[in-house]
Amino acid sequence: MERIDHIGFGNLRLIQDTNAFCYGVDAVILAHFAAGFCKPAVKALDIGTGTGVIPLMLSHMCGASEIVGVEIQERSFELANRNVSLNGLDGKLRMVRGDIADAGLLQDENGSFGLIVSNPPYVKKSSGMTSGADAKMIARHETTAGLDAFVETAARLLKPMGSFCMVHRPDRLVDIFDSCRKHRLEPKHMRLVSPDRSKAPNIVLIHCVKHGGPNLTLFKPLYVYDESGEYTTEINEIYER
Amino acid sequence: MERIDHIGFGNLRLIQDTNAFCYGVDAVILAHFAAGFCKPAVKALDIGTGTGVIPLMLSHMCGASEIVGVEIQERSFELANRNVSLNGLDGKLRMVRGDIADAGLLQDENGSFGLIVSNPPYVKKSSGMTSGADAKMIARHETTAGLDAFVETAARLLKPMGSFCMVHRPDRLVDIFDSCRKHRLEPKHMRLVSPDRSKAPNIVLIHCVKHGGPNLTLFKPLYVYDESGEYTTEINEIYER
Repeated sequence: MERIDHIGFGNLRLIQDTNAFCYGVDAVILAHFAAGFCKPAVKALDIGTGTGVIPLMLSHMCGASEIVGVEIQERSFELANRNVSLNGLDGKLRMVRGDIADAGLLQDENGSFGLIVSNPPYVKKSSGMTSGADAKMIARHETTAGLDAFVETAARLLKPMGSFCMVHRPDRLVDIFDSCRKHRLEPKHMRLVSPDRSKAPNIVLIHCVKHGGPNLTLFKPLYVYDESGEYTTEINEIYER
Repeated sequence: MERIDHIGFGNLRLIQDTNAFCYGVDAVILAHFAAGFCKPAVKALDIGTGTGVIPLMLSHMCGASEIVGVEIQERSFELANRNVSLNGLDGKLRMVRGDIADAGLLQDENGSFGLIVSNPPYVKKSSGMTSGADAKMIARHETTAGLDAFVETAARLLKPMGSFCMVHRPDRLVDIFDSCRKHRLEPKHMRLVSPDRSKAPNIVLIHCVKHGGPNLTLFKPLYVYDESGEYTTEINEIYER
């Protein structure tokens, strides 16, 4: 079943399929985090874009000249295209159907993006079931492409000194740094996100620079909920931006 | 000039040279963090032990059968030996003078330690001045051995599935994970430490397991000071343990 939500950010509307993966706070905080590294007039890319919610938000949050989204799943890709049109963004947003793990993907545009973002599947290839994968499972598990394929693709498509921003789970942090450095995307900034002040972080935001030098800067942690179970001021500010 | 402090932990006393590097909260939180991974009757080792404060604290905090400290500097090594005697721990603590970067260091004991801890110099080899290094500078800068040499030495001296606990600065996190994985010390637990709730982390505690499998667990952050500038309850509990 489809539904259309008003998601804020300059009155964006989003069509989602309620049987498939619906976007969450991860996508919102990633878009906000990435917007902080978006230079004016860059070409931006979202790999594994789903219904295109991150390109939509970025179109409001940063001054990219063009934003491309790549999605492997036909149904999500169709919705992403309809979301672009619904919001009158056909001139600025472009959706591409393709597989991250395919080296031919956007190869004419190798080295051309100034900003690449990704909210990849979190669950490791080997640890989830992979047979009979549906849309929701492909979005959440590494059924099609693994972490390293996302990083490798970002490295190939970015300009030197371009920015790659990813949201992931902290339990993969060693794998993430390992892949990023292997592909010469140096992690430069990191922010940990906790459900609230009493809990350990369960989300990590990472900003890498292609061919950047070493030294990581940690930002203050971000808390999603306050003591009374409401969104914190900072999360509200991100949503209202 | 020398001074003797009562440092708690079962009435330990510590001789330090006020002209040299004196131990700080980093050493205390490292000893406490490492004690959580100390199995009974293991042989423990502190590489870059200075005046031996971490072996002294570990003798109180964990049930290691023997604790060895390695220190390159003659003056610190002499004080470490005197600190062992001063506290009546000659049977349990052993100090060794040597260079971490020397592959011959403790080579008869390769693969024999169940727990290795280290509070290595934080400042990168290339970024600090290195000529005319005094005791304080050797303790703080990588003048003698770099991060990778500490990790390599720990990997060589640890038993399989033994624990390596290190305190360092978060800006080196990518280098740390890189070295650890290269030497097959898999980072398994991490805790970030901030001066207070309003500040970004400036200390990181990492626990690695030799030949461990992937997946990192993040603990809740540790805050050193509360809103009124006093030690937090948790820091006081660590000191009073």
